[in-house]
Amino acid sequence: MGAPRTSTEPRKIILDCDPGHDDAVAILLAHGSPGIELLAVTTVVGNQTLAKVTKNALATGAIAGITGVPFAAGCARPLVRTIENAPDIHGESGMDGPALPEPSIELDPRHAVDLIIDTVMAHEPGTITLVPTGGLTNIAMAARKEPRIVERVKEVVLMGGGYHVGNWSPVAEFNIIIDPEAAHIVFNEKWPVVMVGLDLTHQALATDEVVARIEAIGTGPARFVRELMDFFADAYKGAQGFEFPPVHDPCAVAYVIDPTIVTTRKVPVDIELQGKLTLGMTVADFRAPAPEDCNTSVAVDLDHQRFWDLVTDALVNIGEVEVLRA
Amino acid sequence: MGAPRTSTEPRKIILDCDPGHDDAVAILLAHGSPGIELLAVTTVVGNQTLAKVTKNALATGAIAGITGVPFAAGCARPLVRTIENAPDIHGESGMDGPALPEPSIELDPRHAVDLIIDTVMAHEPGTITLVPTGGLTNIAMAARKEPRIVERVKEVVLMGGGYHVGNWSPVAEFNIIIDPEAAHIVFNEKWPVVMVGLDLTHQALATDEVVARIEAIGTGPARFVRELMDFFADAYKGAQGFEFPPVHDPCAVAYVIDPTIVTTRKVPVDIELQGKLTLGMTVADFRAPAPEDCNTSVAVDLDHQRFWDLVTDALVNIGEVEVLRA
Amino acid sequence: MGAPRTSTEPRKIILDCDPGHDDAVAILLAHGSPGIELLAVTTVVGNQTLAKVTKNALATGAIAGITGVPFAAGCARPLVRTIENAPDIHGESGMDGPALPEPSIELDPRHAVDLIIDTVMAHEPGTITLVPTGGLTNIAMAARKEPRIVERVKEVVLMGGGYHVGNWSPVAEFNIIIDPEAAHIVFNEKWPVVMVGLDLTHQALATDEVVARIEAIGTGPARFVRELMDFFADAYKGAQGFEFPPVHDPCAVAYVIDPTIVTTRKVPVDIELQGKLTLGMTVADFRAPAPEDCNTSVAVDLDHQRFWDLVTDALVNIGEVEVLRA
Amino acid sequence: MGAPRTSTEPRKIILDCDPGHDDAVAILLAHGSPGIELLAVTTVVGNQTLAKVTKNALATGAIAGITGVPFAAGCARPLVRTIENAPDIHGESGMDGPALPEPSIELDPRHAVDLIIDTVMAHEPGTITLVPTGGLTNIAMAARKEPRIVERVKEVVLMGGGYHVGNWSPVAEFNIIIDPEAAHIVFNEKWPVVMVGLDLTHQALATDEVVARIEAIGTGPARFVRELMDFFADAYKGAQGFEFPPVHDPCAVAYVIDPTIVTTRKVPVDIELQGKLTLGMTVADFRAPAPEDCNTSVAVDLDHQRFWDLVTDALVNIGEVEVLRA
Repeated sequence: MGAPRTSTEPRKIILDCDPGHDDAVAILLAHGSPGIELLAVTTVVGNQTLAKVTKNALATGAIAGITGVPFAAGCARPLVRTIENAPDIHGESGMDGPALPEPSIELDPRHAVDLIIDTVMAHEPGTITLVPTGGLTNIAMAARKEPRIVERVKEVVLMGGGYHVGNWSPVAEFNIIIDPEAAHIVFNEKWPVVMVGLDLTHQALATDEVVARIEAIGTGPARFVRELMDFFADAYKGAQGFEFPPVHDPCAVAYVIDPTIVTTRKVPVDIELQGKLTLGMTVADFRAPAPEDCNTSVAVDLDHQRFWDLVTDALVNIGEVEVLRA
Repeated sequence: MGAPRTSTEPRKIILDCDPGHDDAVAILLAHGSPGIELLAVTTVVGNQTLAKVTKNALATGAIAGITGVPFAAGCARPLVRTIENAPDIHGESGMDGPALPEPSIELDPRHAVDLIIDTVMAHEPGTITLVPTGGLTNIAMAARKEPRIVERVKEVVLMGGGYHVGNWSPVAEFNIIIDPEAAHIVFNEKWPVVMVGLDLTHQALATDEVVARIEAIGTGPARFVRELMDFFADAYKGAQGFEFPPVHDPCAVAYVIDPTIVTTRKVPVDIELQGKLTLGMTVADFRAPAPEDCNTSVAVDLDHQRFWDLVTDALVNIGEVEVLRA
Repeated sequence: MGAPRTSTEPRKIILDCDPGHDDAVAILLAHGSPGIELLAVTTVVGNQTLAKVTKNALATGAIAGITGVPFAAGCARPLVRTIENAPDIHGESGMDGPALPEPSIELDPRHAVDLIIDTVMAHEPGTITLVPTGGLTNIAMAARKEPRIVERVKEVVLMGGGYHVGNWSPVAEFNIIIDPEAAHIVFNEKWPVVMVGLDLTHQALATDEVVARIEAIGTGPARFVRELMDFFADAYKGAQGFEFPPVHDPCAVAYVIDPTIVTTRKVPVDIELQGKLTLGMTVADFRAPAPEDCNTSVAVDLDHQRFWDLVTDALVNIGEVEVLRA
Repeated sequence: MGAPRTSTEPRKIILDCDPGHDDAVAILLAHGSPGIELLAVTTVVGNQTLAKVTKNALATGAIAGITGVPFAAGCARPLVRTIENAPDIHGESGMDGPALPEPSIELDPRHAVDLIIDTVMAHEPGTITLVPTGGLTNIAMAARKEPRIVERVKEVVLMGGGYHVGNWSPVAEFNIIIDPEAAHIVFNEKWPVVMVGLDLTHQALATDEVVARIEAIGTGPARFVRELMDFFADAYKGAQGFEFPPVHDPCAVAYVIDPTIVTTRKVPVDIELQGKLTLGMTVADFRAPAPEDCNTSVAVDLDHQRFWDLVTDALVNIGEVEVLRA
């Protein structure tokens, strides 16, 4: 896991997301990075309802000038639990702040679960990385519907959880706690899972300097990111007392682009499904060296400078894009 | 729910099963009854592995002479829990006892979840009854993948649970406890759910007199049922101390054919997911009249005579069937 | 367990209660029955706060003319859970209805837990029966503080639980659910436990005919019972829709006086501590004959006539009592 | 909490322990420090059975030359759970390593729970600190039996738990997980609770230099500590891979002697009672400033040098003691 790749072999990913301000940045990073081949964007209920996050994903695709990549909508609610959204962080639209264009991309008619399965099964084994940045409902459903994807997927690099940090409870993170059973499924399959959790993403702060660099790019997509960050900064300050907002989701994409930007540690991780105080906790066992067959690792340290370099490089690569603002 | 229908309107059902001795009888009852139009047979892990129960379903279809009905395989494992089978009741093959013919039916290429969704969406709302007689994994997956089926399904008549009786634990029944999260999904959707549980099916004993009546029919399918009952009787005597085996699954089909054979009571039912002693219990609240919007009812009393009349009538209707025994 | 005793050997009991209308009747039954030697009355938080139920116990003792029996107050709250009382059944005082006299009995200075321990340790092993009719906090604390009482107690005959019936939840009864950890302790010790639960006590209805018989006795204590029943009948009609109120607690005392009045069945019983829907359920396993070392049995059938005979006989035995009504 | 006190006001403590190598050091530290007035030593099942840890406590008292301090035995098993001991860390005797003298101290006849209650109620409110270094069974029982101790106790400074570290499970510590219900009781009462957990005590390593300093003291009690550390070092190396053993329990005593040796942070802490992976976790909420009425704080940083200075000073103060080695 994690050897640097040459620029001639971009990593094929499926981005499963719930935009969401930071999901949008993740889409832009994936699209603008030569190290990534974006095979599909799928959506799942999470930061807002499925309808809203799907609309936001399509709008982000339009802003980024993405063409030829299928976008498909997935599960509208978690497996077992009732729907929980995050309007205090992402607003009523799920991506409050920037004005959004009319979507120029048409939604793929397939269900996200089937698009994921079809894409994985249509490619060589070991070539596709799943990058979920929302709740894990779609990924869990795909693994249950077509168990063969598990051994074909190269790895699952997900934003979610935290081994010492929670946000939706003292010890649980939003993406995991909104569908803990789905997370339990994903973490307990045999595929390699890299958990890019709050321990890591709370290092990915959009500082004033970062935002200034992005603004200086001067393009529409960069302005879009700037506007996302403005709203996000206020929301995180108000809701959780952050000085600068942690931009979670692109960290997972960044790890796929260049694993040397993120230090990881191999430890067993499992999901608590019964706890009264700890429901949805990603329980990591640091007590001893991980066993040989341990399939989970956790992200520990971020190279803040190089992470934001990747994001700004991607925006520069994307350049200017013509969109019709609504 | 439950007004008798005229014989000119057979009830359209999808039978989702894990044969299973009593599942096989349920298939025969559904196929041989003029009151039922069998639209599809889908299989799910349960009494044995998915591969075995699917083979058993196809073999039963061949023995019954079923043609033109799609058979599709579904989920190979429960949503969250590890696989638990019941070899002490159903043997290593899942349907030990009778010799099985080579399957004459080809498996539908679709996943059971998609076959269920497609079938429901292709028919008029309110016309299709789902009859699950195994774990509820397929049904739950279908409801999550295509939420619109919930309001289109007429009702879910399932074999599973028990309000005062358990078999796999003091208070839980096998079909529910093997995938309690799936059961939680099914019972908490808005469709009408009729729980035909152990309280009812422990009344559906295959007594000596019942078996003699079946044997007297003299056809291949009747002999098949006789052989199933022979094994089943021994297994139930050995494993749970029953004098005669309870033939669970056809009770659900019988209720669909003629609801007057089964007394039901409307009570709220929910599934316990956290209990240490009560995991998978179908918790029914008998304390007060059920609220207006209560969508669940439980089967209470069986008319033993008329139930077995239905089964024997179905076998008579099926008559003799040519099969190639393996 | 339970062979009838001759009248020359009254059963020594400690009554641990939370009066409570039916607790008061239990006190009167114990005091007025020649088959019982009442060694102590201890109180525990439950139907109302410890202060209120202790006051009610003392008042009942005064009304009954009890002398020479220590009354001690015990635990003011459950082991782990927060306090839950039952004002909708027992009123704000815990024994609403009759006017209560000034207590003529002084409270024993010892803690109920110590009084229980001291009494058990001071008597011959196998001679004392504990009769808890409230939450099991005191009994559990005593068993933990002095483990030797467990083998010295003859049996624990408790009112609580229900194997097929709940009142405070669909499947849990008040006395157990208010302190399930205490109940878990009591049921899991080696002493014989006879659970006189709702299955039994819902047969102990104070019908019009019963109340008329009691009234006809014409004494102060009988009038007191009559007034208790009047309030209790209204409360149970309003809160749980009962036509006549079930008079739970004296059933446990009646079983001690004459076990032939109550049919019991030996089955393993344990307490659910984790369930979301089933917390505090007394999970009984009826699936097979109880193992040899099973220490729990459940009350199944009540002889209604002989039960109320015992109560009226006790009131007749008590006769008239001088009290100063407050 | 935690202002340094002048040497003229030693802190009155009750040490509730389960010796245990580090418990023994805690006893010596408490006895030898002028900042502590040791009012009582009480024992509780934990590292070994109650009989063994009580014997060890008495032997330690003899080795330390303690006189005039009551030693009392408490609870022989946890409230709800079955007994779990730690022979892999503390050996079969609970304090393997040094040869132990015949006890010269007679056990107080009172139960530890009563000794705790009596001592607290006999002193001025706000003057007594409880220092539990084992499971919290005794303390919880005392709080339930006599609720008034809660407001009279100055604070509870306990060794147990860990906000980011576990030892008996990935996220739970031994003293808490062996009786989580007792811990839940203690943490949820209103008294100030200072949790000196693994986060802190894993800093209290008995390095070679530390052991050499202790050995250099040259007295019997110092040799005793040296021998304890020898065994402890081997056990911790073998069982948990530590280079040097963490000497947990004296950290709690050290905090009482001089709170400036330990940095603490006020955060809400509660105990997980339901988790499958997280049972007994001390769940701390670091997400926001603790509310005004927060009664819990956690130990964060240890001044390693000054901590071991306290221990060696105490041993010097104790000096040589005559004991009859068995």
